[in-house]
Amino acid sequence: MIIWFSVYFAMRMLSKAQIKHIRSLHTKKKRIEHAQFIVEGQKGVSDLLAAAAPYQQLLYTAQHTPFIQEKKVTKAIQIREEEFEKISTQKQPEGILAIVDMPRQTAFEVANKKYIALDQIRDPGNLGTIIRLADWFGVEAILCSHDCVDVYNPKVIQASMGSIFHTPVYYEDLNALLGNIGLPIYAAMLTGSPMYELPPTEQGVLLIGNEANGISNELLAHATTHITIPARGQAESLNAAIACGILTAFLFR
Amino acid sequence: MIIWFSVYFAMRMLSKAQIKHIRSLHTKKKRIEHAQFIVEGQKGVSDLLAAAAPYQQLLYTAQHTPFIQEKKVTKAIQIREEEFEKISTQKQPEGILAIVDMPRQTAFEVANKKYIALDQIRDPGNLGTIIRLADWFGVEAILCSHDCVDVYNPKVIQASMGSIFHTPVYYEDLNALLGNIGLPIYAAMLTGSPMYELPPTEQGVLLIGNEANGISNELLAHATTHITIPARGQAESLNAAIACGILTAFLFR
Repeated sequence: MIIWFSVYFAMRMLSKAQIKHIRSLHTKKKRIEHAQFIVEGQKGVSDLLAAAAPYQQLLYTAQHTPFIQEKKVTKAIQIREEEFEKISTQKQPEGILAIVDMPRQTAFEVANKKYIALDQIRDPGNLGTIIRLADWFGVEAILCSHDCVDVYNPKVIQASMGSIFHTPVYYEDLNALLGNIGLPIYAAMLTGSPMYELPPTEQGVLLIGNEANGISNELLAHATTHITIPARGQAESLNAAIACGILTAFLFR
Repeated sequence: MIIWFSVYFAMRMLSKAQIKHIRSLHTKKKRIEHAQFIVEGQKGVSDLLAAAAPYQQLLYTAQHTPFIQEKKVTKAIQIREEEFEKISTQKQPEGILAIVDMPRQTAFEVANKKYIALDQIRDPGNLGTIIRLADWFGVEAILCSHDCVDVYNPKVIQASMGSIFHTPVYYEDLNALLGNIGLPIYAAMLTGSPMYELPPTEQGVLLIGNEANGISNELLAHATTHITIPARGQAESLNAAIACGILTAFLFR
């Protein structure tokens, strides 16, 4: 009886306004308005804690109690599974999420380093995967055109596997930026210099185009090299994140 | 009035049994039982037609009529959107799918060529993306452990972008097969020989492990080389398909 009692009162109910607020963060418009985003799942929350990124609140269901206690997590509220389902961004909710303030970003300043620029990448899995591989290879920053998918989309955050807390992502007018960047720009193309013949570099921009349409003509005009992954089979193209991974591994080894 | 009349009768209604049959192909068990699978979306159907792969039936909604006429598609039945939604595997149905007989597969026979072996790859997007990149690099075949995701899963087919019709995928007892294959086996590992130091090869097996747990010890015992992608940043690992793409590009260039 005592156990039941104490468990019951360790739970909190979310108010309708709280549920509405968290659900509103499922959309880009409201994320920007509130300058907040959601990190969901135990892996994402672990990465958030490991990066010591500041968060507003952490919500979890009973099954995650050992994790919360072990990590000595503050600002954590236990809620019921039925309530968690109302705020989750996942089809099969894991039962843990954090509400995180967007970091204040300083303006992008170029250095003699390695960058990846993305022209209209629409698929959240691709953007998240690219952030993860950029982190792996020590790429300095990712430069997104304004019409790339939102970096705070829950699917981007999940696919980045914590790398979102390591590798900065800037949304920029890429036409203006690349026209003025003073670094070699390697445009990933279906025809161009075979990557195997190019020397690796410690500074430059690898430019990756849209999944269906490639790099826009406007941005292509700034390329100093067209770089290509030679094909030996029948596939018409490679997935954008795969192409980015292969070219990054060659160019920025 | 006449137009309405003729459009009405150009449509067919699917019977309840037909809808039930097509929906049953959403599950692996029933796909195997009926030896059929679904190829959905205009890109997938285009690839099916281009590969001249035999299919049982093609179902489409009115918007795809120009495509059906242009390609002179046979065995095609136009149905209503409401009916299409009942049989679709997609969240946002494109309105075109084909029911395809599984090809009869001959037993795998090894040659002195390039192979990718996958140990417990669970994510359908990863498997489809790996088939696509294997096709790009002219890999001879993909060898899956029996507990990999089903190659006829609709998400695998979609991510393969038609390469499923070019690159054969075999499900095998990898422990028996790799123990006996007589080719060098390169196991993708977090520690091992840096790929940049290994010469490219025209024959061998690149072995990729499970997304969370890597390569099982049983299979690792058959490896002749541990190959690694040197990290320069903070990410703990790379996505399995990205790692496979990078190592394929290096090893099987």
